Amino acid sequence: MNELRLLQQVLPLLKQNAATLVGPGDDCAVIQVGGELLLLAVDQVIAGVHYRPDTAPEAVAAKLLKRNLSDIAAMGGTPFCALLTLAGNNRDESWYLRFFRGLAACAEQYNVSVSGGDLAVLPPGSPPEALVATLTITGKATPGKLCRRNRAMPGQTIMTTGQFGLSFSSGHHLDFTPRLAEAAFLAGTYTNCMIDVSDGLLLDASRLAAASGVGMIFAPERIPRRNGADLTAALSDGEDYELVFTVNPAAVAALRSSWPFTTPLTAIGTTVAAHPGLVFDENGVNLSATHKTGYEHTSE
Amino acid sequence: MNELRLLQQVLPLLKQNAATLVGPGDDCAVIQVGGELLLLAVDQVIAGVHYRPDTAPEAVAAKLLKRNLSDIAAMGGTPFCALLTLAGNNRDESWYLRFFRGLAACAEQYNVSVSGGDLAVLPPGSPPEALVATLTITGKATPGKLCRRNRAMPGQTIMTTGQFGLSFSSGHHLDFTPRLAEAAFLAGTYTNCMIDVSDGLLLDASRLAAASGVGMIFAPERIPRRNGADLTAALSDGEDYELVFTVNPAAVAALRSSWPFTTPLTAIGTTVAAHPGLVFDENGVNLSATHKTGYEHTSE
Repeated sequence: MNELRLLQQVLPLLKQNAATLVGPGDDCAVIQVGGELLLLAVDQVIAGVHYRPDTAPEAVAAKLLKRNLSDIAAMGGTPFCALLTLAGNNRDESWYLRFFRGLAACAEQYNVSVSGGDLAVLPPGSPPEALVATLTITGKATPGKLCRRNRAMPGQTIMTTGQFGLSFSSGHHLDFTPRLAEAAFLAGTYTNCMIDVSDGLLLDASRLAAASGVGMIFAPERIPRRNGADLTAALSDGEDYELVFTVNPAAVAALRSSWPFTTPLTAIGTTVAAHPGLVFDENGVNLSATHKTGYEHTSE
Repeated sequence: MNELRLLQQVLPLLKQNAATLVGPGDDCAVIQVGGELLLLAVDQVIAGVHYRPDTAPEAVAAKLLKRNLSDIAAMGGTPFCALLTLAGNNRDESWYLRFFRGLAACAEQYNVSVSGGDLAVLPPGSPPEALVATLTITGKATPGKLCRRNRAMPGQTIMTTGQFGLSFSSGHHLDFTPRLAEAAFLAGTYTNCMIDVSDGLLLDASRLAAASGVGMIFAPERIPRRNGADLTAALSDGEDYELVFTVNPAAVAALRSSWPFTTPLTAIGTTVAAHPGLVFDENGVNLSATHKTGYEHTSE
């Protein structure tokens, strides 16, 4: 299946009711519930796709929760509750126990309740280490802090948290910290347009650009790279779980001077009115055409 | 893995935060959001476990949504929004297209938005027809209508909607109607204690009994059986997606005379103070000890 082509066909089929302020196509759905904005997202981790089968079960569980927390962060929200499903083989209970211990510890760290779920056993014939785990995250946002990926304007500065590239080989894809605190600081004050980078900086930035109807000019040499990463890795590897957001140029100095985190904060480019949805470098080279766009194993 | 033993070990690990009114252990989690009660549940369908791989994809999708709607019904709630995940092999797009068409049609029928999700491809080595689909449902309830499984009192009449047994062989597990309308009629007026029967009448009724700290006396000959089902099938087959609830005996006649549905409404027994969590027949035979308890492929 070609995921993008499939989604283009099926998303128009899915009618949204009046309470749904944001349906498919952002990091979270946004639903109006009793005067509050409810954020909803779901993500999966699959053995052999999102982690090597010999990964510690505690780390698998934490990754599953943290990927979802990164989606809440990108909307400027606060997470509060999660649901879990596991579909695995009938393997040793100790693997599952360790998974749940890791999940419980990570949930407590971020003040998230794991409040329900479903366990099921895969049918005979599944590979022995097979596992599909999903986690649904709920969060809250206030209208003044809600960030969307479709609100960038031409002439804004494109900024990022953290570093990019080599997430798998460095172990970053397991030990990353979702940027909830950074997002809460930024949202509604310095930005209202944000996305999290799970499928690669170039692909996720171009999604923000396409949703906003702007183009982007990157300064490739400014893109912060994880140790050992070349430009292609930084642009395309994925699983960085960092934030990309747009800031009015006049506010960048104030943001830099007030930034209370050790997390790197970097201006990597500018939004422009031309070529909406595309990312160029300063020499007019279309980066999307000259680099692997991203890591498309999943979509939000 | 022994699911029950695993859950007994892991549920105490999962700390609930202040907004979580009901955590794991009922048909839905209940969260306080802006003065409203938010209901959350998730369920899975797995190829070769919950449906035969040759089942029409539209029916698989509808089953997935309707199983979750049955959980919302059991809490006395109204569904409003769903999230989907699919983890399948890289098979023909037409299967997925048909799945989404069936999901969209069913969602529209129940005024549910499918507002987000995640698609992923299983790793090489998975059986060709492998599919794990999950759906998270959200709903709303009002405090006066919220039903729980822990509110039965001794001396109440145990009532059911519909018929039981042979759900798989009859096709009922695909073509059932979740009892949302019946539940909305009952909730807060005739009952505040309800559960849906997905794992077998005996098992789910005994879960309600255990949560409420009551015992149950069934009149086995009164249990409404699907055409061809014997008592064991009616008690144990599972996938009935009917409601079991308790009513004060003085209100049963009024309930019967005001029942506006063609759905069968049947009194099958009485709650008692003795032997909490167990189900006996009128001759003092412990039904849980003499019949297969239920169909434990999943849990809520």
